[in-house]
Amino acid sequence: MEYTKELSNLIEEFRKFPSIGPKSAQRMAFALLKKTPEQVEKFVRVLRDAKEKIQYCSKCFNLTSNPICEICLDPRRHKYQICVVESVKDLAALERTHDYHGLYHVLGGVISPLDGIGADDLNISPLLQRLTAMQDQNSGFDHIEIILAISLSTEGEATMLYIKRLLELQFQLKLSNLEIKLTRLAHGLPVGADLDYTDEITLSKALESRVLA
Amino acid sequence: MEYTKELSNLIEEFRKFPSIGPKSAQRMAFALLKKTPEQVEKFVRVLRDAKEKIQYCSKCFNLTSNPICEICLDPRRHKYQICVVESVKDLAALERTHDYHGLYHVLGGVISPLDGIGADDLNISPLLQRLTAMQDQNSGFDHIEIILAISLSTEGEATMLYIKRLLELQFQLKLSNLEIKLTRLAHGLPVGADLDYTDEITLSKALESRVLA
Repeated sequence: MEYTKELSNLIEEFRKFPSIGPKSAQRMAFALLKKTPEQVEKFVRVLRDAKEKIQYCSKCFNLTSNPICEICLDPRRHKYQICVVESVKDLAALERTHDYHGLYHVLGGVISPLDGIGADDLNISPLLQRLTAMQDQNSGFDHIEIILAISLSTEGEATMLYIKRLLELQFQLKLSNLEIKLTRLAHGLPVGADLDYTDEITLSKALESRVLA
Repeated sequence: MEYTKELSNLIEEFRKFPSIGPKSAQRMAFALLKKTPEQVEKFVRVLRDAKEKIQYCSKCFNLTSNPICEICLDPRRHKYQICVVESVKDLAALERTHDYHGLYHVLGGVISPLDGIGADDLNISPLLQRLTAMQDQNSGFDHIEIILAISLSTEGEATMLYIKRLLELQFQLKLSNLEIKLTRLAHGLPVGADLDYTDEITLSKALESRVLA
């Protein structure tokens, strides 16, 4: 052991984060030691605040510090559009385009048998419940649109197909007198690419030329 | 702002660390939210412990949780060898070779006028004081060796030259009846490379074939 115990422990804690190797962890530990005590206490406060206050939105599973997220509460958002995304990171990527004005539904992943992730591990039933709840609301629009904004990987395609079949079975793509229009992002998105890493313009284009699923 | 305030703050705090870009910061923030409350509290404890307990060794300026570091206190280390390094990271890199059994002196940087770092900003006077203190000790050896283990960059070379001149002026390379032998790492080290990133074997070789400065 070439460092004093407290420093080794600190480096080890930083190493637990994803994509932080031994050199980065060491660099971060030294950077922490260079901070003033006040800066360290601020860092601690922000860490605890985030952990204590951030929760999932009970409607769309976005991360929020309130029971329902700002997007769901925003009266200017189109209630007849629900964009289904894998993760909150992907939601944020779509928000950065400033081209989408509907609501979201965060799945929390994609179906991936190899990783032991089945449909029950994702927020798919809450999506169906959300649609069921919309049955009774006379909301002044004649269709709702579900946009599947999921990466075009094998698992992503399988997840989209699963959701499509489920909606067909459960609702015959119709909620009382509301037509359900199911679309997905255009193939402008590079196949196999991470949605979260796609630039805003490509993502805007993919959103614009979305096609029926 | 596409994230809730607490999450944006958290990402921003991670971004303050060196070589952490927006993507890495986001990834780290999400990883933190996935931790259990106990894991977050452990992380906080380790952060605070490190900040509160770690200090500089009053002899060699290594990082330590005691007034004097373990290396300086270790009776098996050769007291007649002082290896002068830029940083604690470099000290740790040398320790990993397991080939050096003397003491250290951490400068805290190199002379770099462009960055506004002069000789007074480094622990050079404490090195001279350390040598002066050795004058009076009759320690059973007839010479002391100062190994300049500093990167061979322009600033590093200048710093080595500065220390050499200073020792010549102040002590004429002699402490009472102790000869001062001034050496530096061999040119086995790639010129311009960061000492901290050099592999153990190259560093061992450079240490082994060190030459008179």
